[in-house]
Amino acid sequence: MSNPGVVELPLVQDEVAACCPPVTSAELSETDAVRMAAMFKALGDPVRLRLFSKVASHAGGEACVCDIQDVGVSQPTVSHHLKKLREAGLLSSERRGTWVYYRVEPQVLAAMSLLLGGSAS
Amino acid sequence: MSNPGVVELPLVQDEVAACCPPVTSAELSETDAVRMAAMFKALGDPVRLRLFSKVASHAGGEACVCDIQDVGVSQPTVSHHLKKLREAGLLSSERRGTWVYYRVEPQVLAAMSLLLGGSAS
Repeated sequence: MSNPGVVELPLVQDEVAACCPPVTSAELSETDAVRMAAMFKALGDPVRLRLFSKVASHAGGEACVCDIQDVGVSQPTVSHHLKKLREAGLLSSERRGTWVYYRVEPQVLAAMSLLLGGSAS
Repeated sequence: MSNPGVVELPLVQDEVAACCPPVTSAELSETDAVRMAAMFKALGDPVRLRLFSKVASHAGGEACVCDIQDVGVSQPTVSHHLKKLREAGLLSSERRGTWVYYRVEPQVLAAMSLLLGGSAS
C-alpha cells in the first residue's frame, strides 16, 4: 500500500545518505522508522555515546578497543556496547593481529544527521 | 577536573546548537553524553520516531494530537510517547482550547544533527 508523502529509504546502507529526507520535509514510513530508530537507540545510552564519540574523534578515524576503554565500566561491558554499535550499523570493525579496530560508518552518520534536518558536511 | 579535548556544552537549551561539536572533532564529556544520549534515546523507538516525524513534517511545523494519532497504537500510548519527546526537549507543547499542539524544538534538532557531523541547515 503506497502512502503519498511517505518517502521510502533504500535498503542498501551505502545509498542511505543520498536519499534520507529530513523529518521536517516528509513523514517517515513505518519500515524506515524501525530502521532509523534502531540507530538512534544505539546512541541512547551515555556510555555507548561516549565510546562512539571516542572512536569518531580518534586520530585516523579509527580506534582499537585498547584506546577507548577509559569510560568507567568493565572491559566486557565496553565490548558489549561496541557490539551494539556495530549491530546498529554505526561502527565497522576489523581485526589486525591481537586487536580489533573500530571505525565510524560515515554514510550512516550522515543519514542520521540529514534525517534531523542538517546538511551533509 | 578538566579534560583537554573534551568540549563542555552549556546547560541553556537555546545555546546548544551554537556550540555542539561534531563527534568526529571532539570527544563528548560525561555530562554532555548523559544529556545528548537522553535525546537520542527519545528517538530510539519506532512509534516515537514516527510521531516525531509527523509533528516535524506537519503543515506549519506544529500538530495537534488529533492530527498524528494514526500510528497503530492507542491514544494513551500516543500521549505517553509525546510526553517522552517533550521531556527529552525535542518537542514543546501548548494548549489552545480543547487541544494540545506540539512543535519541534529546532535548536535541539540542530544540536543533534551537528553532533552527528552535519552542518546546520
